[in-house]
Amino acid sequence: MANIEMDKIVAHCKNVGFIFPGSDIYGGLANTWDYGPLGVELKNNIKKVWWQKFVQERENSYGVDCAILMNPRVWEASGHVASFSDPLMDCKECKARFRADNLISNYSKGEVNPDLMTKEEMSSYVQEHHVPCPVCGKSNFTPIRQFNLLFKTQRGVTSDNALDIYLRPETAQGEYVNFLNVQRSMRAKVPFGIGQIGKAFRNEITPGNFTFRQIEFEQMEYQFFCHAGDDEKYYEEFKNASKEFFISLGIPAEKLKFHDHDKLAFYAKAACDVYYQFPFGWDEVNGIHNRTNYDLTKHQEYSGKNMEYLDPVTNEKFIPNVIENSYGLDRAILAVICNAYDVETLPDGEVREIMHLSPKIAPFKVAILPLIKRDLSEKAHELFRELAKEFRVTYDETGTIGKRYRRQDQIGTPLCVTVDFDTLEDNTVTVRDRDTMEQVRMPISELKSYIEKIIK
Amino acid sequence: MANIEMDKIVAHCKNVGFIFPGSDIYGGLANTWDYGPLGVELKNNIKKVWWQKFVQERENSYGVDCAILMNPRVWEASGHVASFSDPLMDCKECKARFRADNLISNYSKGEVNPDLMTKEEMSSYVQEHHVPCPVCGKSNFTPIRQFNLLFKTQRGVTSDNALDIYLRPETAQGEYVNFLNVQRSMRAKVPFGIGQIGKAFRNEITPGNFTFRQIEFEQMEYQFFCHAGDDEKYYEEFKNASKEFFISLGIPAEKLKFHDHDKLAFYAKAACDVYYQFPFGWDEVNGIHNRTNYDLTKHQEYSGKNMEYLDPVTNEKFIPNVIENSYGLDRAILAVICNAYDVETLPDGEVREIMHLSPKIAPFKVAILPLIKRDLSEKAHELFRELAKEFRVTYDETGTIGKRYRRQDQIGTPLCVTVDFDTLEDNTVTVRDRDTMEQVRMPISELKSYIEKIIK
Repeated sequence: MANIEMDKIVAHCKNVGFIFPGSDIYGGLANTWDYGPLGVELKNNIKKVWWQKFVQERENSYGVDCAILMNPRVWEASGHVASFSDPLMDCKECKARFRADNLISNYSKGEVNPDLMTKEEMSSYVQEHHVPCPVCGKSNFTPIRQFNLLFKTQRGVTSDNALDIYLRPETAQGEYVNFLNVQRSMRAKVPFGIGQIGKAFRNEITPGNFTFRQIEFEQMEYQFFCHAGDDEKYYEEFKNASKEFFISLGIPAEKLKFHDHDKLAFYAKAACDVYYQFPFGWDEVNGIHNRTNYDLTKHQEYSGKNMEYLDPVTNEKFIPNVIENSYGLDRAILAVICNAYDVETLPDGEVREIMHLSPKIAPFKVAILPLIKRDLSEKAHELFRELAKEFRVTYDETGTIGKRYRRQDQIGTPLCVTVDFDTLEDNTVTVRDRDTMEQVRMPISELKSYIEKIIK
Repeated sequence: MANIEMDKIVAHCKNVGFIFPGSDIYGGLANTWDYGPLGVELKNNIKKVWWQKFVQERENSYGVDCAILMNPRVWEASGHVASFSDPLMDCKECKARFRADNLISNYSKGEVNPDLMTKEEMSSYVQEHHVPCPVCGKSNFTPIRQFNLLFKTQRGVTSDNALDIYLRPETAQGEYVNFLNVQRSMRAKVPFGIGQIGKAFRNEITPGNFTFRQIEFEQMEYQFFCHAGDDEKYYEEFKNASKEFFISLGIPAEKLKFHDHDKLAFYAKAACDVYYQFPFGWDEVNGIHNRTNYDLTKHQEYSGKNMEYLDPVTNEKFIPNVIENSYGLDRAILAVICNAYDVETLPDGEVREIMHLSPKIAPFKVAILPLIKRDLSEKAHELFRELAKEFRVTYDETGTIGKRYRRQDQIGTPLCVTVDFDTLEDNTVTVRDRDTMEQVRMPISELKSYIEKIIK
């Protein structure tokens, strides 16, 4: 049931132009996806909402856009080179490969949390419980091998002077590494925040669930630097901010779950996962972590640069705590799509596919539809050009008007504007609402402010 | 002279927060750069102007956002695996390494175009002319070795099933590979265009000139698919569009040069490089190419997918021609920065650093400056929060008002809004213009529409 629904969403996304399989004509590249014409607009709109909330509207808040390729010392300091790995087991019978943690959490139906187990404990659990291979049903696994998830490449010309570098597995280190540069150039006072939106890469062995887990994905991260004494206050503030953000995307609060961890990484003081109720189950879309001053301290240790902040009022010197806010952009998009997609039966019995996208983030704000192509196309094009200066607009002149309304419903366009013969006479148009299907007549001169009101 | 000016711009960019060296606290990673708080805003604003012009305002125009990691067959079809390489020579005396084409074009002061020479011809030229090593002055080079510029990495878990994949060296193939998906899902009629903004990677051996040539960079590409009979018309149209685009960023026409190539790649019909006059010389910021139907034909050959378009009016079947428009985003940013930066002597003899950025793309639109911190800070913060809903705003309450004006001039903020004691009484503020330094008094209620007018 859940899977059928997901399949339908995947097919819809490809069909109408939200998301295509990556490298599609070549049979794809497993777990890469391309955003199509509608997907890229939705993505850009969600980025804009996030940036406005976290970077633009907050005081003492600054953006950065860092290189994906960083000095490899960064990943030594962060611990990724040493221990950013998945515990893999192969079934000796059928040769299928699995993550030990996934085997255990699926087998225990979530009762056991493998994130808190050592490699040895996971091995023992699988043996003692005779956990079966999900493919062949036998229970005969190899020992666990750790597989590092960093994508590695080489910078430099020839083998004699090439340097191993990595594709960043997260954007966060860019903010940490630039803490001093941002603080100095902005003359920023703690507490302040640094936000970034960008790509990250992980050589995952168990991707899946459409765009939920990809080898290449985009993060929206906000690192907030504060005094250790204020950390708990801000941790709570950013949990609220997360809720506000998802609600502003049109996601209802009851489809969100906030889970505070009981057990934590040794350096962390608090951690909260935010889950959305996907068709395939509850899963993480955002993490909020009180990381103490662990990250900046590590970078001080590895770079030799002093990461202390001198408070100009108290004269106290300290390395700030970090409250990390990490949003999966592709996951936010997927949540929005899953939440918006619906198949409705109308009062007259007709069935329509519809995406109840919040007008603020809908790919197209308006569709321009000339009632009759031959006579009204010129006027309709003129209107397109006028509105396209302000909004992302689409144009459709083929098929019956009913069919064209359905197409716009299918992709979540909030408003359809029909140009008819009266338009030529009096410069009025019919504006049809996606959700209520109600129509109002208005002068073209009022259209711009009407659309603006709808998308606010 | 030119270099001094460039050094000054580089220092300014780091100092005020436009661009930092990548991985700065670790001594950098050669030729990577991070956009700081001002740089990322400028970058996003330029992206928005481009997207609006090419994707939003054109009819039959669609965006995509494709994965950086693509099926390796894509790069076989495009020719990058076989021949995307630099011709390298080492000086046998001092061991320095050079690109043969650069050696030749520098030695001949641009008289000879090495792009039109074979490897053998380049070798002979260097020998016959005793081209000296730019480092040690001797002329004793190794033969030319071809070095492929693709960054390679491995997808997959262990050596037994790993797949060599590449970081894309250009975004264009994403648009070509999605030609069918976009055409079908959008029911697009030829001619139509696909635009994309995204990162690309090249293992360059001769980067330099600040952000001009990096190993990681961002492109804004627009691929226009048209009938072979219309290609010349659109080629000219996009040359005009390029000029309009740069002028809309505030770049004067006289700092642009359009150079049509005499000799072309075997498949190309026309090619134009657009140059900007950087402090280090004229160099390319945009390329417009009539690539015929070469790319889609290649992908048809390698993928086995039929790339033909059936014209619904004429019933003609054909593989469309492509007019490629490739903009270097980092180069557009660099051109804008170089063009805007100035040191002015004011009538009173004071010297000010200023960036004459077009208000449309300036990082901050407005600075809020309370005249006196203690009494006016609350009112000024209130104004910040109000304006920050609409615009990127900055706030500064330290130092004399004159000093604060200078700081905003330095980073190109078009308007400064001063909150003083009268503001508390009558809700009016002083608005000061960056370029003219003229001040006007206006009610806060008129501020929003005033700013909107300025940044249009």
